[in-house]
Amino acid sequence: MKLDAEWVTGFVDGEGCFHVGINPHQDMKSGYQALPEFTVVQHKRDVQLLYALKAFFGCGVVRSNHGDRLAYRVRSKEHLLQHIVPFFVKHPLKSKKHADFEKFRRVLQMMEAGDHLGPDGVEEIRRIGSQMNRGQSR
Amino acid sequence: MKLDAEWVTGFVDGEGCFHVGINPHQDMKSGYQALPEFTVVQHKRDVQLLYALKAFFGCGVVRSNHGDRLAYRVRSKEHLLQHIVPFFVKHPLKSKKHADFEKFRRVLQMMEAGDHLGPDGVEEIRRIGSQMNRGQSR
Repeated sequence: MKLDAEWVTGFVDGEGCFHVGINPHQDMKSGYQALPEFTVVQHKRDVQLLYALKAFFGCGVVRSNHGDRLAYRVRSKEHLLQHIVPFFVKHPLKSKKHADFEKFRRVLQMMEAGDHLGPDGVEEIRRIGSQMNRGQSR
Repeated sequence: MKLDAEWVTGFVDGEGCFHVGINPHQDMKSGYQALPEFTVVQHKRDVQLLYALKAFFGCGVVRSNHGDRLAYRVRSKEHLLQHIVPFFVKHPLKSKKHADFEKFRRVLQMMEAGDHLGPDGVEEIRRIGSQMNRGQSR
């Protein structure tokens, strides 16, 4: 199944999620690790759409999620920076999810600059992450 | 906000719903009335997308739904037949929602032909309606 860029933007406006997790990690200087993640979750009957997204973006994995649901997921910082972020810069989301994307992009830029390695950077990333995905009532 | 047709298809693949309600109605010969309805529900923060859909399709209304959610809704048989159905024939949905759309279209064609006025037609519409929106886990 070949996807059109505008279709992908519309579908992600509806179903996509940009999230930054902060996990304790003893190997990191700050004691924490930032985990940016782009996901699209679907009922298993539409798994073919998740594989089509994987082929479209040329990265990521399709994995089981909760119950009958599966997720297309991109966690690699390089793939997010090289494939996901440039796409949504070129094809901006139309929903308020666009604001989440801009925060997500900012976190990735900080990580690329190494800002996530010190405590100030981690605190800033945690602050940005806490402002994302508000008001989503699923 | 101007919408692209492919964006609309992607967004509706994610967020849209084609539904046929069957309500008792004493004025109808069969005792029942078929109520086809196309809806897109969003959190109120994205109400601008619902108004953009209304402008895009040139029909329908934006109304409050449950809690913090609003719905773009088209119930007029004429508007469904003249605006909504032709759009999704030209720009097919890529998700399994496409099968719901085909059933929805079939019901509208039956109603256009007057088949919904007799008991057999109502029973057929009820049967088709009961097969729609299965497996949606919202």
